[in-house]
Amino acid sequence: MNLIRPKLPAAEALRERFEDVRAHSLALAAPLSAEDQCIQSMPDASPTKWHLAHTTWFFETVLLQPHASGYQVFDPRFHYLFNSYYEALGPRHPRPQRGLLTRPSIDQVHDFRRHVDRAVLALLERAGEAEWATIEAILTLGLQHEQQHQELILTDILHALWCNPLLPAYRAPAGPALRLAASAPPVHWLARPGGVVEVGHAAPGFCFDNETPRHEVLLRPHAIAHRLVSCGDFAQFIADGGYQRPELWLSDGWAAVQAQGWRAPAYWLAPDDPRLASQGVPAGWQVFGLHGARPLEPEAPVAQLSFFEAAAYAEWAGARLPTEFEWEAAHAAPGITQMSGHVWQWTRSSYDPYPGFRPLAGIAAEYNGKFMVGQLVLRGGSIATPQGHTRASYRNFFPPAARWQFSGLRLAKDL
Amino acid sequence: MNLIRPKLPAAEALRERFEDVRAHSLALAAPLSAEDQCIQSMPDASPTKWHLAHTTWFFETVLLQPHASGYQVFDPRFHYLFNSYYEALGPRHPRPQRGLLTRPSIDQVHDFRRHVDRAVLALLERAGEAEWATIEAILTLGLQHEQQHQELILTDILHALWCNPLLPAYRAPAGPALRLAASAPPVHWLARPGGVVEVGHAAPGFCFDNETPRHEVLLRPHAIAHRLVSCGDFAQFIADGGYQRPELWLSDGWAAVQAQGWRAPAYWLAPDDPRLASQGVPAGWQVFGLHGARPLEPEAPVAQLSFFEAAAYAEWAGARLPTEFEWEAAHAAPGITQMSGHVWQWTRSSYDPYPGFRPLAGIAAEYNGKFMVGQLVLRGGSIATPQGHTRASYRNFFPPAARWQFSGLRLAKDL
Amino acid sequence: MNLIRPKLPAAEALRERFEDVRAHSLALAAPLSAEDQCIQSMPDASPTKWHLAHTTWFFETVLLQPHASGYQVFDPRFHYLFNSYYEALGPRHPRPQRGLLTRPSIDQVHDFRRHVDRAVLALLERAGEAEWATIEAILTLGLQHEQQHQELILTDILHALWCNPLLPAYRAPAGPALRLAASAPPVHWLARPGGVVEVGHAAPGFCFDNETPRHEVLLRPHAIAHRLVSCGDFAQFIADGGYQRPELWLSDGWAAVQAQGWRAPAYWLAPDDPRLASQGVPAGWQVFGLHGARPLEPEAPVAQLSFFEAAAYAEWAGARLPTEFEWEAAHAAPGITQMSGHVWQWTRSSYDPYPGFRPLAGIAAEYNGKFMVGQLVLRGGSIATPQGHTRASYRNFFPPAARWQFSGLRLAKDL
Amino acid sequence: MNLIRPKLPAAEALRERFEDVRAHSLALAAPLSAEDQCIQSMPDASPTKWHLAHTTWFFETVLLQPHASGYQVFDPRFHYLFNSYYEALGPRHPRPQRGLLTRPSIDQVHDFRRHVDRAVLALLERAGEAEWATIEAILTLGLQHEQQHQELILTDILHALWCNPLLPAYRAPAGPALRLAASAPPVHWLARPGGVVEVGHAAPGFCFDNETPRHEVLLRPHAIAHRLVSCGDFAQFIADGGYQRPELWLSDGWAAVQAQGWRAPAYWLAPDDPRLASQGVPAGWQVFGLHGARPLEPEAPVAQLSFFEAAAYAEWAGARLPTEFEWEAAHAAPGITQMSGHVWQWTRSSYDPYPGFRPLAGIAAEYNGKFMVGQLVLRGGSIATPQGHTRASYRNFFPPAARWQFSGLRLAKDL
Repeated sequence: MNLIRPKLPAAEALRERFEDVRAHSLALAAPLSAEDQCIQSMPDASPTKWHLAHTTWFFETVLLQPHASGYQVFDPRFHYLFNSYYEALGPRHPRPQRGLLTRPSIDQVHDFRRHVDRAVLALLERAGEAEWATIEAILTLGLQHEQQHQELILTDILHALWCNPLLPAYRAPAGPALRLAASAPPVHWLARPGGVVEVGHAAPGFCFDNETPRHEVLLRPHAIAHRLVSCGDFAQFIADGGYQRPELWLSDGWAAVQAQGWRAPAYWLAPDDPRLASQGVPAGWQVFGLHGARPLEPEAPVAQLSFFEAAAYAEWAGARLPTEFEWEAAHAAPGITQMSGHVWQWTRSSYDPYPGFRPLAGIAAEYNGKFMVGQLVLRGGSIATPQGHTRASYRNFFPPAARWQFSGLRLAKDL
Repeated sequence: MNLIRPKLPAAEALRERFEDVRAHSLALAAPLSAEDQCIQSMPDASPTKWHLAHTTWFFETVLLQPHASGYQVFDPRFHYLFNSYYEALGPRHPRPQRGLLTRPSIDQVHDFRRHVDRAVLALLERAGEAEWATIEAILTLGLQHEQQHQELILTDILHALWCNPLLPAYRAPAGPALRLAASAPPVHWLARPGGVVEVGHAAPGFCFDNETPRHEVLLRPHAIAHRLVSCGDFAQFIADGGYQRPELWLSDGWAAVQAQGWRAPAYWLAPDDPRLASQGVPAGWQVFGLHGARPLEPEAPVAQLSFFEAAAYAEWAGARLPTEFEWEAAHAAPGITQMSGHVWQWTRSSYDPYPGFRPLAGIAAEYNGKFMVGQLVLRGGSIATPQGHTRASYRNFFPPAARWQFSGLRLAKDL
Repeated sequence: MNLIRPKLPAAEALRERFEDVRAHSLALAAPLSAEDQCIQSMPDASPTKWHLAHTTWFFETVLLQPHASGYQVFDPRFHYLFNSYYEALGPRHPRPQRGLLTRPSIDQVHDFRRHVDRAVLALLERAGEAEWATIEAILTLGLQHEQQHQELILTDILHALWCNPLLPAYRAPAGPALRLAASAPPVHWLARPGGVVEVGHAAPGFCFDNETPRHEVLLRPHAIAHRLVSCGDFAQFIADGGYQRPELWLSDGWAAVQAQGWRAPAYWLAPDDPRLASQGVPAGWQVFGLHGARPLEPEAPVAQLSFFEAAAYAEWAGARLPTEFEWEAAHAAPGITQMSGHVWQWTRSSYDPYPGFRPLAGIAAEYNGKFMVGQLVLRGGSIATPQGHTRASYRNFFPPAARWQFSGLRLAKDL
Repeated sequence: MNLIRPKLPAAEALRERFEDVRAHSLALAAPLSAEDQCIQSMPDASPTKWHLAHTTWFFETVLLQPHASGYQVFDPRFHYLFNSYYEALGPRHPRPQRGLLTRPSIDQVHDFRRHVDRAVLALLERAGEAEWATIEAILTLGLQHEQQHQELILTDILHALWCNPLLPAYRAPAGPALRLAASAPPVHWLARPGGVVEVGHAAPGFCFDNETPRHEVLLRPHAIAHRLVSCGDFAQFIADGGYQRPELWLSDGWAAVQAQGWRAPAYWLAPDDPRLASQGVPAGWQVFGLHGARPLEPEAPVAQLSFFEAAAYAEWAGARLPTEFEWEAAHAAPGITQMSGHVWQWTRSSYDPYPGFRPLAGIAAEYNGKFMVGQLVLRGGSIATPQGHTRASYRNFFPPAARWQFSGLRLAKDL
């Protein structure tokens, strides 16, 4: 007979963490109206309401339905509406039409969240030891999943607000800037040795399958910049004709520049932008962000860059992007700064599987592995990444033309 | 000295009419949430909120700014946001992005409406005789314009709700059906003589420029059906393979059938539709309408038809569509029914200018004339048309593939 | 016993006409290489070789297979390859892929033509009286059909040559211009009375089904220009900003101007066109035609115009396009010139069926009727139209954005 | 005084090689008509004639114009027409319109080739020692370049012939199959050790910049299949529902399967294909190749596969694709077969730059480096690769959805 339930402290911690993460999603949505939360500004982005519902659907489908006996689904039709891309779970609402779901209303989605939250907490309460490992693993994955969507809530709504000629701010610009660097000192090049290093997840604690297995890679001697490329740096690239010089660009990148008319990072407003005139904003480059359009801060890390732009900048600067392994090896190097909390950093590494990679079993098999082609790895973490979500081995990934993330770069070069 | 102001009764009537029409727009929006009113389900449709703002913008731009001295615009940026297609008024927000305007909020749009309404009523109050004719003409046009958008509010939101797999109803289905025919008797063919008849607007009262000038046309003897084609009639066309027989279709129509996968009118749900299964609805064809999905009523006029489908049906039935002039000549023929208040009726007349047609002067020049190519004329009026808005000479028009209106048909044949 | 075969002279004449028309197709292709005859420069255009084969397929399929007993098809696979749009004849090679048919070779297509020609002539030789009427009707239709494709051979290859930066000439520019007007005198406005007139085909002789039935229409008094709009006239429209002024354009026309970047008629080369520089051609507008790029001739009728451009020009000129019936009524008016043999003339008439129109029976039912929506009527005939092919009641038709025909305009106005 | 010209034998050899390679291009085009050589069946493919001209343009532009004093260009307009993608060389004819170039004719392109060949041979004849190194390097690059296009001549024309419903053969099927494996024995798994290996070009002799610098990589123990996946193997994947099981596919791959309707490799003809019926070919799968449609040979390596299909097959087989370094390390392993001369082999390596990679200087900088994103590496060489063109370090690359190459796969697995 088991008088002591050794899982109790862990369950307690998990319960607390569950409540925190779930509350944070709602806090992120709080500045937004029901209208704001409903729209989808491009097929790659999703409505806030959809994020709130989809993360809840994940707990219902992956945790509660298989593991909480007697659980009553909130609405069986949500299974179709809020599945994102899990083929094993059957057909789903087409991604480009997520913005058409005015129903369920935001209030109903809040009800859905409460219904699922109650059931999860009840499950935690009554879970026996036998089920504990399974429940903990799924719940942890579900929370990591929700944190990823918390970043998307911010980047997706920012894109939607950017599409509005009124350029409304997500948050009032009062108060201090979030976590921006205070200054952009000259770049120091940190020399890094070659040799065999271990990469991938090692420490205890959660990681995604794409960070495994930990393995050895061979690096060559190189140098890495101690800080990120700043808006001031990038403005020099623009002023030097960077967007007009094909020799700086990858072929697909140059095609994108011409087809999309890129002239600056995604949310930069040129001094003659008519939207600024109607706002009475002073002349000069402006950058649109969570606080609306504000004068360009030269020392702030440049963001909302595609990989193509990051690579062209590096070429212009006579440098290159680091590989994801160089980045990982340097993450705790003396003197290195701005590794996380500012922008995701494009690397010169395609998103390929690690040697020996196997996806998770079950539904989660579709979580990462099936996207391992045609994308580039980003490392670090941004101002929109929830506190504590990333780590040195974390592999974010996006297609090379994606521009709506808080994505920037750090330079490297061969030695 | 003019002690009696002869315009008073007219002004009184106009004021009352203004208040009625403006209130009716809000009444149409009342069953909809802020989310519902914000979305745009296809480029051809507009959000409810946009309709509410655009009709208001029309009064502000065409009436108040030029004619109400001292008028303060509500928000100068709305000029860009809520212009629909008036090139003379400068650039405008792209039509396909109307659904991205979560701001201004619906509450701000209501404020905008109140602001403009007050100014219009004040202008009516103080207008001198000299200005009266101008004001009355513009105000009348603005109200007719708003009534046209009232119909679009219904047809556009119906399309949006149709795109939602939950198939939500605009209105609760309780209560009697709107104005549907009670039965579909056998068709009587009303013989109509040939000869010269006058068409176009004649009576006193408002009309659009495209109904003028009144002129003579030459008809040939023909017969016209005394009633509309019903859902029951159309179900026979489907059952007879109408959507699989190219010989019944115009070439562009057959291309549309194949490219779009048409198998029935736009909002018909086949008995095996998965959306019905999830709703527990009984088998059989269902038709989605303002009251949600309901069993097909054989006697109800068929609606949500493209011109292509109307023409294919007529071919199948060994008949043809009436010309717009045959329709107009027959509008008060003894025995004819369902001429208005059910569905707009596709005619076999392209939307060409009348001989001698000149568009209105000023901004209103862009109202009708510039659309006179590539469209077909519809006559009559639908259950979504505001009471009193149409008349016998009224020319509605849509491209031949448009299916989201309350559009159906009546048969004719040569004698 | 029938000693006298009254059809002999008619048969003789038909045989001769058959040989003439068939030879003319080959003559039109003669200046072109096998490569030239193989390509398709846009989905709307077809390769020369395809025209040569398709017109032959028509005789094989509609005349020989049903009516020449014992006829051996040349190659059964051609039935699929060279059907154009006849749904009743089964599936066919997709139109946009006609340019991929390097096989059969042009030599094989010539063999195909000879094979069918021999069989047709043999059929004519042996046809009995009973079959004569049928054979004559089909053969006549086939020859008219081939003449229509003769015009397309020229307009389609011209488009293909235009797509080549070398701007090769279809014919050497030596010799006199084809049938161009020698001068562009001031426009005389010919006053035309209103009243009932008969339109449609009346005279004995061949006509297409879309010209029937002959019927009365009611005209209003108007005036029609005695000549076509010339290149010199149109250059003034351009110089006056015609392509930059939305108020002159139909809505769809203005959208086309912006989407396609139209700045002049389709084959006009602006003085700064880089293709001219590489050819050492003198500065000034050039017009590309069957003789290559040549200096703009101010007196020549403007061609390669869309309906949208024709309508915008008329608006700019304070006039309008004639209706197709005004054109037909004026075709032999005293003083009128350039009615045929220069350019097809856009009218302000949509391509609708005549009252009482019934398509031909059998396969030919698909010939004209199924295209009667979304197109505009052109009247007259062009320098590319075979001699004797058109007549006053002839109805040509194209979509309003089509620009690769010899299509221009004549002005009209209300009186 | 330099009596012995040490370069003579090298010059001799180079001259001979130049003549051989140039002649081989013409030999590949010999079975094709002028029509065949003119068409472009998709934007990714180019006409034979264009390949013949572009490879000649390369010698003219990169070798003769800068290095052969007094050289007269054949036709200055060809500079625009036959530049492929070199931004540094100015604007060029749009790639999707290469098939519209009926002029210059194939005869003129042959003249162009002769003109350039003569000039190159004359340059070789008179080149002094000082220039020799430069000339040799450029000429060698030009010949390697031409050999790459020789493979494309075959794969591009095969695609064009495949688009023709007649399925014409490039070569008569008489004679023995090219170099196909005689049998498909059971797969042996060759165990391969882990550890540091050198990859990249090392031996003396030509290589492309993307094969450098030679560098060390770290492999993990694994096994590699001794032979390629055969058509018989792949038919089992199809029979097992491989194209209907999303769990086997990468996400983008599954999207391609559904959007493109893939059911088999690109040129496989299902037993019920209508094109087979019209050819009187016996039932059963057929595979279209250079000899036309022939019954599937189970032992032949499967070809015309996309990376997506290769990866799905490997997943189905419980294996994976080798990395490009595993492939390179195994290229001379005892027992390994079919490494070259059959099909290019997709690897599980994205086409990233090698550490320390720098592109060639000058125009050739655009040769490889600018394509290093979004593509996958293929290793080996195919039946269409010119003899002697490839080597163990050769990196071919294509986007993951490309299917028109002789591309197949070999399996690997972790140990």
